Amino acid sequence: MKKLINATETILTESLDGFVSAHRDILVVGDEHKFVRRASLKPGKVALISGGGSGHEPLHGGFVGLGMLDAACPGQVFTSPTPDQMLAAAEAVDSGAGTLFIVKNYEGDVMNFEMAAEMATGEVMTVLTDDDVAVETSTFSTGRRGVAGTLFVEKVLGAAAEEGLDLAALKALGDRANAATRSMGVALTSCTVPAAGTPTFELGEGEMEMGVGIHGEPGRRRVPLTSASEIAEEMVTAIADDFGDKARGEAFVLLNGFGGTPLMELYLMFNAAQQLLGRRGITVSRCLVGNYVTSLEMAGCSLTVTLLDDELTRLWDAPVHTPALRWGV
Amino acid sequence: MKKLINATETILTESLDGFVSAHRDILVVGDEHKFVRRASLKPGKVALISGGGSGHEPLHGGFVGLGMLDAACPGQVFTSPTPDQMLAAAEAVDSGAGTLFIVKNYEGDVMNFEMAAEMATGEVMTVLTDDDVAVETSTFSTGRRGVAGTLFVEKVLGAAAEEGLDLAALKALGDRANAATRSMGVALTSCTVPAAGTPTFELGEGEMEMGVGIHGEPGRRRVPLTSASEIAEEMVTAIADDFGDKARGEAFVLLNGFGGTPLMELYLMFNAAQQLLGRRGITVSRCLVGNYVTSLEMAGCSLTVTLLDDELTRLWDAPVHTPALRWGV
Repeated sequence: MKKLINATETILTESLDGFVSAHRDILVVGDEHKFVRRASLKPGKVALISGGGSGHEPLHGGFVGLGMLDAACPGQVFTSPTPDQMLAAAEAVDSGAGTLFIVKNYEGDVMNFEMAAEMATGEVMTVLTDDDVAVETSTFSTGRRGVAGTLFVEKVLGAAAEEGLDLAALKALGDRANAATRSMGVALTSCTVPAAGTPTFELGEGEMEMGVGIHGEPGRRRVPLTSASEIAEEMVTAIADDFGDKARGEAFVLLNGFGGTPLMELYLMFNAAQQLLGRRGITVSRCLVGNYVTSLEMAGCSLTVTLLDDELTRLWDAPVHTPALRWGV
Repeated sequence: MKKLINATETILTESLDGFVSAHRDILVVGDEHKFVRRASLKPGKVALISGGGSGHEPLHGGFVGLGMLDAACPGQVFTSPTPDQMLAAAEAVDSGAGTLFIVKNYEGDVMNFEMAAEMATGEVMTVLTDDDVAVETSTFSTGRRGVAGTLFVEKVLGAAAEEGLDLAALKALGDRANAATRSMGVALTSCTVPAAGTPTFELGEGEMEMGVGIHGEPGRRRVPLTSASEIAEEMVTAIADDFGDKARGEAFVLLNGFGGTPLMELYLMFNAAQQLLGRRGITVSRCLVGNYVTSLEMAGCSLTVTLLDDELTRLWDAPVHTPALRWGV
């Protein structure tokens, strides 16, 4: 295992210290590193909190700030945060308008956020993301996994919360944004969880894992590595088929790197995916290309497609000021 | 070689097509993919052009836009662009106030930019970046290499050009920004140039290359992989020693990933470097952490330190709107 670390036990806290120090205009860290939260809160706004295992940076901490999350709770690498983390975060950022949890659909995350919701004194609702079309159940999930589409859900909810939408309306919006979103990923290499010290899975020199999860969970099938265009075709087909009759019109596309793939290749994949979507009547009107929802140093990428309407587009375009996404500010 | 590509011959053009399509609000591509340039130019402004081999994305194309470059010329991976690319770019963006080339100190780049400068009809001046303290001469360079500090030089020149500084003043500012900047890198793995198909160099399982160049050129020494803090200490010492008596006061720090290292580790390295700099009387007042000047999928990072003054700080803070850096807009 080759990593820039001091000791596996202190990776998370040392990394968080660097993170909040680099972004001290935006963020502060909670006691015992339980969460990161906005340095300045907006009174009367519904509080948005997400979290999950670390190793997917910039998700979620990189999305805390104006126009997006109020707090994020980082677990150890690929391990759910504990309920007391979410509870501490909720107490720190709830301004009386209630709290919305945004949770990727993994059993540990779902259970721990649920426990925190029950213990919280204020009103809490939850939006569950499950945008991964690759498999219906997986190593850590019952039902579909929540993956890179979570970024879109967090962005539009953040914008709507700034505008003053109430808790129930935000919950409905989040569910709608998630329902409009589909993702699928492919891995060319594994990643290595620091505490394990060895690769999560093994892929042969000429193999790829089609439909991989963001923790290296198995996807649909392990097949020989093929061309970028053929990989894009399989992803676009899986996503479009899953949308069914709705698969047309304007879309947001996130061509997301898992951490170990150069930007050159991600833009090349975006180029292929955009053309294939266009042939199916889906026009890319908003997009992001880069490493946003990663799996440590895994090589590979995922494609996320959200079918847009005017409201979702407007909320996507709204100002945002976080460590990883910033515009209009 | 595991890459998301269709064919080695078409990587650059397909990637550029995806890049300009994803950022069509900012960029257009020149004929025959010779350059990318701002979609809208500012009349009367000195034109800033950079370029170099591809594989370092987002450098340079990702820094084209308001407040930074007017055009960037991408060569094949780790290969200098040709003089006709720079010439075509200069003709496309020169608005009569002259053109400033920003060139990393590699023999091929220096020679080809020089040829373009001689052929250009308008006035051309050149700023050479050579911020890498690791080695005095290297595989592709006479004198120090230009590495990640080039980002800082391009940013402050871009801001000053927007303010209307003339060509000679920009040249002086660029030289001053470069002289205030030092970098040093470390590699934990090699990268693979697509056309070569095999790793550029071999590192043993427990080894690192201290002082590596951004094309995988040898650094100071190959040593056993050590802790993040010890690596940071060596980089900070090399940089601070090179600054000598000037090594104090406020600084900009870029903790740059080479492409294959997770953000978690980069923030951890930033944390270590910031503390070590602080002990030497250097306060980090501006910073960037992430993959900005990469070496394809190489694992590793570099540390860049620029000693700031009020003017450099103000120019760094000025609005920028490019694919890879954006604030204030």
